[in-house]
Amino acid sequence: KIQNTRKRAPAYPPGVDVTVFDQAVDELRGQLGTDNVSLNDQPLIDGWYMEHPNTHDMMHVLDDEELVPSAMVYPGSTEEVQHVVKWANKYRIPIFPISMGRNFGYGGAAPRVRGSVLVDLGRRMNKILDINPDDYTCLVEPGVSFFALHDEIKRRGYDHLWIDPPDVGGGSVIGNAVDRGVGYTPYGDHWALHSGLEVVLPTGEVIRTGMGALPGNNTWQTFPYGFGPYSDGIFSQSNFGIVTKMGMALMPNPGGFESFVYTFPKEEDLTQLIEIIRPLRISNILENVAQLRHVIQSIAVLGNPRSTYYTGDGAIPIEIIHEAVSESPLGDHTWIYYGMSYGPPHIRKYKLDIVDAEFKKVPGARRIDPATLPPDEYFWTRDRVASGTPDVQELRWVQWVPNGAHIAFSPVSPIRGVDATRLIEIARRRHDEFGIDLLPAFIVGLREMHLIVEIVFDRNDEARREAALKCLRAMIDDAAACGYGEYRTHLVLMDQIAGTYNWNDGALMKFNEKLKDALDPNGILAPGRCGIWPKRYRGRGWEM
Amino acid sequence: KIQNTRKRAPAYPPGVDVTVFDQAVDELRGQLGTDNVSLNDQPLIDGWYMEHPNTHDMMHVLDDEELVPSAMVYPGSTEEVQHVVKWANKYRIPIFPISMGRNFGYGGAAPRVRGSVLVDLGRRMNKILDINPDDYTCLVEPGVSFFALHDEIKRRGYDHLWIDPPDVGGGSVIGNAVDRGVGYTPYGDHWALHSGLEVVLPTGEVIRTGMGALPGNNTWQTFPYGFGPYSDGIFSQSNFGIVTKMGMALMPNPGGFESFVYTFPKEEDLTQLIEIIRPLRISNILENVAQLRHVIQSIAVLGNPRSTYYTGDGAIPIEIIHEAVSESPLGDHTWIYYGMSYGPPHIRKYKLDIVDAEFKKVPGARRIDPATLPPDEYFWTRDRVASGTPDVQELRWVQWVPNGAHIAFSPVSPIRGVDATRLIEIARRRHDEFGIDLLPAFIVGLREMHLIVEIVFDRNDEARREAALKCLRAMIDDAAACGYGEYRTHLVLMDQIAGTYNWNDGALMKFNEKLKDALDPNGILAPGRCGIWPKRYRGRGWEM
Ligand SMILES: Cc1cc2nc3c(=O)[nH]c(=O)nc-3n(C[C@H](O)[C@H](O)[C@H](O)COP(=O)(O)OP(=O)(O)OC[C@H]3O[C@@H](n4cnc5c(N)ncnc54)[C@H](O)[C@@H]3O)c2cc1C
Ligand SMILES: Cc1cc2nc3c(=O)[nH]c(=O)nc-3n(C[C@H](O)[C@H](O)[C@H](O)COP(=O)(O)OP(=O)(O)OC[C@H]3O[C@@H](n4cnc5c(N)ncnc54)[C@H](O)[C@@H]3O)c2cc1C
Repeated sequence: KIQNTRKRAPAYPPGVDVTVFDQAVDELRGQLGTDNVSLNDQPLIDGWYMEHPNTHDMMHVLDDEELVPSAMVYPGSTEEVQHVVKWANKYRIPIFPISMGRNFGYGGAAPRVRGSVLVDLGRRMNKILDINPDDYTCLVEPGVSFFALHDEIKRRGYDHLWIDPPDVGGGSVIGNAVDRGVGYTPYGDHWALHSGLEVVLPTGEVIRTGMGALPGNNTWQTFPYGFGPYSDGIFSQSNFGIVTKMGMALMPNPGGFESFVYTFPKEEDLTQLIEIIRPLRISNILENVAQLRHVIQSIAVLGNPRSTYYTGDGAIPIEIIHEAVSESPLGDHTWIYYGMSYGPPHIRKYKLDIVDAEFKKVPGARRIDPATLPPDEYFWTRDRVASGTPDVQELRWVQWVPNGAHIAFSPVSPIRGVDATRLIEIARRRHDEFGIDLLPAFIVGLREMHLIVEIVFDRNDEARREAALKCLRAMIDDAAACGYGEYRTHLVLMDQIAGTYNWNDGALMKFNEKLKDALDPNGILAPGRCGIWPKRYRGRGWEM
Repeated sequence: KIQNTRKRAPAYPPGVDVTVFDQAVDELRGQLGTDNVSLNDQPLIDGWYMEHPNTHDMMHVLDDEELVPSAMVYPGSTEEVQHVVKWANKYRIPIFPISMGRNFGYGGAAPRVRGSVLVDLGRRMNKILDINPDDYTCLVEPGVSFFALHDEIKRRGYDHLWIDPPDVGGGSVIGNAVDRGVGYTPYGDHWALHSGLEVVLPTGEVIRTGMGALPGNNTWQTFPYGFGPYSDGIFSQSNFGIVTKMGMALMPNPGGFESFVYTFPKEEDLTQLIEIIRPLRISNILENVAQLRHVIQSIAVLGNPRSTYYTGDGAIPIEIIHEAVSESPLGDHTWIYYGMSYGPPHIRKYKLDIVDAEFKKVPGARRIDPATLPPDEYFWTRDRVASGTPDVQELRWVQWVPNGAHIAFSPVSPIRGVDATRLIEIARRRHDEFGIDLLPAFIVGLREMHLIVEIVFDRNDEARREAALKCLRAMIDDAAACGYGEYRTHLVLMDQIAGTYNWNDGALMKFNEKLKDALDPNGILAPGRCGIWPKRYRGRGWEM
């Protein structure tokens, strides 16, 4: 989509006079350099994943001019981030920090409050500060992507070090971790594996957490806790601070790895299969954060638009999908499990034999021999990602519809057949209601799984955007009524989802608000993120 | 030690009028029942580990009447804890919550501020609320000890579930985790493995963290994070809340286990050995949180007083120790590594063969065949603890001196030979200076290790208590000057250690104080714990 004009006037920070804002921008330009502050007054250009805009959400589910910043600033150091924060406090201008802004499905680079000043940390703060080959750790700035970290490790010849990428490798190590994203090796829980933060607080002070608070230490990246309250967690999924450095554990090369893939014929197999997975996963026979995907994903990820298969109304009939997949190297199936086993051959064999015996208890279960799969098969993407090589193939299903964009429903459940089935039923009922294709995948953690249902929509079609959003809002409420909550969400849904975590009359949100008011008395940092509104905004209709 | 009288008058809460206090106590008795509020006005009786007092620190390093509460209260429910907190706010009485008060070496049951009211949560709130055999999780109240949890799992016949006990099993699962204690199976990092808290805030509200905030959820114990800021960490090693329930992961029975023990002849072997351990530990060939102990520990843990071996002045000469250990089934050595391998036999063999080849690179390294060790050998204690069976044998080295008590120096370092040696040198120099026997052990985590140096002293001998404290204070400063900080500490040392985490002009402590003031405006909850003083106390000479 290329636009030559804007429909609406450029956005301004709420409650800030235009001339005051202009003056404030000039002041900031004086501090950071003219090139490092730009107004968001040009036409919006969507670009694509690897050249995404930070002027708006490229995969917007609202009108593209809705969640836009007034300006973008590019600090080059922690000190410059402190400048920006102090400046924001002086003028009461809301700022919204991003690392790289590739948080697609969850809001991309967009701020929650229209007219905020976007603090794009990654553009200039993109150094790998340390890779420690003895401790198996690294220390990075916000602009370091999974690709960049992977490449640098290879460049240095550290074959014994692996990274853990999420499905698309262009995001930043920091941005993904602070939003509590996941990858697919045994090191998939990124938040759990970080060690040490440097954080600029909403009032401008800078702290280092964990051992980082001890001058001259050599343990910042090896021991996460330090002494006293372990405060890192409150800087994830929040608006309590700006992370300017983060340490991360690197996985030791396991000395061998082997992907495996099983298909299961029937929808109903889900219940039995999940029951089989649970004990194997908890006991680490299934070692990685695996994906159990639905057949429609097997087709969508080929990258052909759905119109290749179906041009009728409503959700695509499942028979058409089965027909299409029957002709593929995978053969017909309903569920497909992608896993990986690690270690030397005899150790893998021990685990794989158990997996095989257990999975084959499902009638019709079939192990596909990877040797039969062509090199461009999606299987090899899962193989790369689960062995620490970043990839972008996962983006292919976004082309399922023209001008494809996506937004995710991501509820958490125990690894139990009954929960899996209940969540799929909620999703299917609502998808049918809104005529949307259901694209579900279970991401199996250790004792829980995230169901990720991606709604792919034509972002230029207002009706489809609205349907996507209505479907999502309905699923969120249905799920909450059954006791399921989301692990992460899109900017637009944050208030709704925060509202479902309302035990004891919303006690947790009141607690979060107390922290917010103490740490950010002027309410300048990412107001509304994760449903937390500072005092100045609270109860004034900002929720959506 | 039995005393019939008190040397000093009973303690009162600071700044609270005696008659007001009496009236407040009466009021609380009316709410909780007379039996559940007792004044601390009787003679102090030390008891022993399994019948420890909550009137003071049984292993006091100050005079036993120094860190004493004015009264002890025993709430029976979360609501009663809320009552106590509101009562404390009403009268501005400092309260100090403990789970079971067996935090020996770190302050026992004592409060930081003399005259605080001790909130003994464990006495009445001691239910195992859930053991989930499918999810491998449990939910416990503060009074549930490792022994109690272990026994209940056995009673229910859940052979597939293991717990992870610390060295002595009488402490509580909650108290140990919130102080960030460690155990010795692969589930040794208790804080990392908890999932979900219920917390009474210092102003009396109750929150549930993680998925616990979602009504009707079934994921509180399976997914720790929930949605929004992950706040659990700030309730560990802090004074920001009272934990009334906690979820915890249980380890899957690994299907077999096998302890192994190696000895190494020389002091200098430490450097090489630690270098060997690091990559094996990070890659999980060494699977558990293991202990590498010094030969003096091999003797001390026999439970004989040091006078059996030596009655001279100053630290015991190392030749005497070597002589004694030469006659023991372990044979002469300087360092001894206790580890465990898990899984079925051929999987263990794979790992144990690697360990053997690596450890044997140290000249003179010797693997001891467990079959040669008698049933009362300390080896079997390590075997039990590392396979999930709580024990109390570790208490034996506390009898090294008459009226034995202990206090720990616990710095964190990377798993590197040079750091190990440097820390041992710091400890040795100061121990020699104060004529104290050096009892070091390295507790090897995943990317870091804690050196635990236990000073055992005669608690009835004021001079030895003082020497212990002076030695500790000196080691803390020496270590900090080299960039090492403690992971946890005794009440008496909290200010000093918090003071070493002073990067950027004490930014982290200022941040902690900001949180403290926001959450506890009246400063009633555990003032001074981990060096965090509320506004009412700050800068008034409370530090020590
Ligand atoms: C096809 C596809 C597949 C995907 N698969 C996955 C997947 O497998 N796993 C997964 O986790 N995600 C996945 N995503 C979502 C997303 O791409 C990734 O999570 C990505 O890593 C986000 O990275 P980022 O650094 O660009 O995020 P950012 O946009 O920079 O950060 C995300 C949010 O975190 C906050 N934030 C970021 N940096 C900071 C900071 N320094 N200080 C304070 N707050 C900050 C901001 O609110 C920001 O909006 C997928 C997306 C697509 C399109
Ligand atoms: C010989 C010996 C060996 C030991 N070995 C180990 C070991 O291997 N690993 C180890 O970790 N420890 C060890 N310890 C120390 C100690 O015994 C244990 O950590 C024990 O588990 C503490 O348990 P507790 O529940 O009684 O602690 P508590 O005294 O109840 O708790 C400790 C502190 O945490 C805080 N706290 C407790 N409960 C709450 C709550 N509900 N809400 C808010 N704050 C709370 C309080 O400030 C309290 O003082 C050892 C001690 C001895 C004597």
